[in-house]
Formats: sequence, structure tokens, C-alpha cells
Amino acid sequence: MTEKLSAEARGPLLDPLLKSGWTMADGRDAITKTYEFGNFVEAFGWMTRVAIWAEKWDHHPEWSNVYKTVTVVLTTHDVGGLSALDAKLARKMDGLA
Amino acid sequence: MTEKLSAEARGPLLDPLLKSGWTMADGRDAITKTYEFGNFVEAFGWMTRVAIWAEKWDHHPEWSNVYKTVTVVLTTHDVGGLSALDAKLARKMDGLA
Repeated sequence: MTEKLSAEARGPLLDPLLKSGWTMADGRDAITKTYEFGNFVEAFGWMTRVAIWAEKWDHHPEWSNVYKTVTVVLTTHDVGGLSALDAKLARKMDGLA
Repeated sequence: MTEKLSAEARGPLLDPLLKSGWTMADGRDAITKTYEFGNFVEAFGWMTRVAIWAEKWDHHPEWSNVYKTVTVVLTTHDVGGLSALDAKLARKMDGLA
């Protein structure tokens, strides 16, 4: 079962992400990051790799793309905030970038 | 050369789009449309097909995706507003949806 992150779980899961370019989204229990790639093909290619993992894990990002820039917001709508799935997908996104 | 749409060209190119779900974006010389698909795979699959045409024509959308919803904004940054390329890409997007 996916659950909202407990107070104890937040630090260990979120601190490494907050040190690698992720920030808390304004006014939401969500994390966000903007990735810059070399061009559109690299940006969309990364999105495509991420999309396959997102579907495989049934956990999908909110994201926008303008040419070589992709901005991502991660949260878990089912629990009304951040869950361990968001941290997992964030780490995968960083690994694929 | 890509040029900003002339007053004469706007109607014939934009009117058919404005009748098929496209609207003018707030405060910009741009058109926007939100597409709803059956699920994430259909939404991202459509984005992937569009992405290949966008790259082929060297004309890229601003777009955002949340699960099965994709919102697109089209404008031509090089000319500071709408060009014929935006209408061409809009028609392609509708054709692929």
C-alpha cells in the first residue's frame, strides 16, 4: 500500500533529493525539479525513458516541456502528498538524466 | 522564411482551428488546446508521435502532461507570435489525436 510519508520517513527519503536539485513545490506537499538538456531530442528522449518507468510503476509525473527544458512535479494524488513512490521516481529520473 | 501571420492570413489559417477546440492563449499571440486521452500510454504515445513531427519541422510545442491529459501552447518564438508553422503543427496534432 502506498502511504503518505511519515515524519520519520521524510528526512531519509527527501534530504538526498533536496541536495541534488529537487525543491519543495510552492504550497503543495510535492517536489519539483527542472532539467536542462542539450536539445529537444535529448529532452524528449529522457521523457520517453521516464515514461516507461512511470507506467511500469503506475506512478506518473506532472511535467512540462519547452524545447530542451523539462520541469517535473512529483506527488501522490491518492494519498494527498508525498509518498515513497515519489522519491523512487525522482531517483530514477536523476539516474536517467 | 517563417513570418508572423499577416492580418490577411490569420483568418483562413486560424478560424478552422478555433472551431476545433483551439483557443487563443491568455495575453499571448499563441493558440492552446487541451487533449484528453484514455490513459497515460495513449497520452504519451500521442506526444511521441507529435514530437517526431515537431523535430522534423524544427518547430516545438510548449506542452504539459498530467496522466491522460496534455495541454499544448503553440507560438513561434523567433517571430514573437503565431506563424503558419503553428497552424501546420496544430493540424498535425489534431490529425494524430
